[in-house]
Amino acid sequence: MNKKLIGVDLGGTTIKFAILTDQGEIQQKWSLRTNILDEGSHIVPDIIESINHHIDLYKMDRSQFIGIGMGTPGTVNREEGTVIGAYNLNWKTLQPVKEQIEKGTGLKFALDNDANCAGLGERWKGAGHEGDDVVFITLGTGVGGGIIANGKLVHGVNGAGGEVGHIIVEPNGYECTCGNHGCLEQYASATGIVHLAQDAAEEYEGNSRLKAMIDNGDEITAKIVFDLAKENDFLANEVVKKVTYYLGLACANISNTLNPETVVIGGGVSAAGEFLLKRVQQNFQKFAFPTVRTSTQLKLAQLGNDAGVIGAASLALDFIADEK
Amino acid sequence: MNKKLIGVDLGGTTIKFAILTDQGEIQQKWSLRTNILDEGSHIVPDIIESINHHIDLYKMDRSQFIGIGMGTPGTVNREEGTVIGAYNLNWKTLQPVKEQIEKGTGLKFALDNDANCAGLGERWKGAGHEGDDVVFITLGTGVGGGIIANGKLVHGVNGAGGEVGHIIVEPNGYECTCGNHGCLEQYASATGIVHLAQDAAEEYEGNSRLKAMIDNGDEITAKIVFDLAKENDFLANEVVKKVTYYLGLACANISNTLNPETVVIGGGVSAAGEFLLKRVQQNFQKFAFPTVRTSTQLKLAQLGNDAGVIGAASLALDFIADEK
Repeated sequence: MNKKLIGVDLGGTTIKFAILTDQGEIQQKWSLRTNILDEGSHIVPDIIESINHHIDLYKMDRSQFIGIGMGTPGTVNREEGTVIGAYNLNWKTLQPVKEQIEKGTGLKFALDNDANCAGLGERWKGAGHEGDDVVFITLGTGVGGGIIANGKLVHGVNGAGGEVGHIIVEPNGYECTCGNHGCLEQYASATGIVHLAQDAAEEYEGNSRLKAMIDNGDEITAKIVFDLAKENDFLANEVVKKVTYYLGLACANISNTLNPETVVIGGGVSAAGEFLLKRVQQNFQKFAFPTVRTSTQLKLAQLGNDAGVIGAASLALDFIADEK
Repeated sequence: MNKKLIGVDLGGTTIKFAILTDQGEIQQKWSLRTNILDEGSHIVPDIIESINHHIDLYKMDRSQFIGIGMGTPGTVNREEGTVIGAYNLNWKTLQPVKEQIEKGTGLKFALDNDANCAGLGERWKGAGHEGDDVVFITLGTGVGGGIIANGKLVHGVNGAGGEVGHIIVEPNGYECTCGNHGCLEQYASATGIVHLAQDAAEEYEGNSRLKAMIDNGDEITAKIVFDLAKENDFLANEVVKKVTYYLGLACANISNTLNPETVVIGGGVSAAGEFLLKRVQQNFQKFAFPTVRTSTQLKLAQLGNDAGVIGAASLALDFIADEK
């Protein structure tokens, strides 16, 4: 009988869970609101209770499971199974997550950061098609990423491998939360796009619904910018030009370094779909080294919110390899 | 008894050879002029003859050797053991190098590109200190590189992994031989540095020995630019500022993506030593993500011309792994 995996995608607002086959097919999924009160001290107990409850609910046995994998915000120590500095969870001190969850569920547990897990998910069951070399870029509130080279995640010496949101695309550009200037995150995240729109509206004098909305004090989102650009709003189009220029430049430079089979673009902003992809591709073509231009493909992510639980679950597959 | 390796570093002017222990210690080295006449058809026979001659000369037996590894210019097919498009060797058509050398020497043979081999060499016995994540950048006539992640070279889907010379550091900048504009190679190679110096001299009106030499029609080299900058020549210093700005930016962006333990800077231009390194580091510090800034180190290469043969020889170590 095929064994099962449990994938957990821990986020600042919800915790997503899934039970999957060892082939990565989701059989059950559910979610919880993240309770970040009391310094996030309810989170791990809530995860343990929810997993135990669902194993019972589905009348399953612990021996059916290979293990649990989880993606989390913050800085992860994969060997120790700990997390620190996950500010959107109120986890300021070191959290011994692996120890607690293994004890509480009786199952083996592995951990990695959330963007790396989503990258693993897209590589396994999504746009990455199990390629050996896949780069995943997620455009959300921030910009994160996961790099897979020779079939393995690249963590680097201190776990900052895949921090593609902090590639400098405009030296002396917008100040970033990391303290540097001109990081990709400031131009291609949802918040960065709004920032670009506000600055563009201030300088622009002509006709534009985007400008009218901003001048009127309406709340702007990245989605609104892309929707208006699709309707040929001049200013919205100028903003999209900048966003896709920086994204295309970053994708090209990552690819000039690694020549991956696929660069997968995911996260909320990627909901703009082919309209976004096509323009990023145009800039990518301009900046990519000839061999890279013809061999590395840009694609939209395919798994949406499931990428995290699928990729997290795949972490538990290493337990089989370890046993062999 | 320890077995031996043979490393070959094939270049446009010389072919370097070495016999090494399986621990990477060079025991013998020699070299040949590269004979690129007749479409480079003498090169492989010359390599075979030279290896056979030296095995006899040192009264060694083929059974003492694990195999031969070679670094070469051009586009390498590692599985087939072929090379194509190595223009400085006059190799325009597909060269079945592995087949010929294995037949001619009776030893197993492995192949990779020259910059990747030099990267492997610096990682094994040089500045990379056997780290799992090491980036090598070589500043010569062009700019090449080798990326090691999780202990393995990153070739990417079409062998262009490590083409760091074609990272775009100045969109719409100098035109590159690859057809793009603003590649690192145009700012940090020996030829790029001379180009920067000539352009700077044209715009500058003040006192400068570098300017006087250029105006006088003297031949300028990257070494002259660095030597004059060390003597505080104003214009030479301005050129070095630009070179190290672009190099620091590229090193930071590679490291923001991969967080390697070490970025090793080698090649002829790196002979400028600590003077170069210190300035590259200043720019790296400015552009690196905080975690990367404190965990990724920039270092000068330590093996000089031996990096190529040492790294090439290490390719043959895979034959032991394959037998197990």
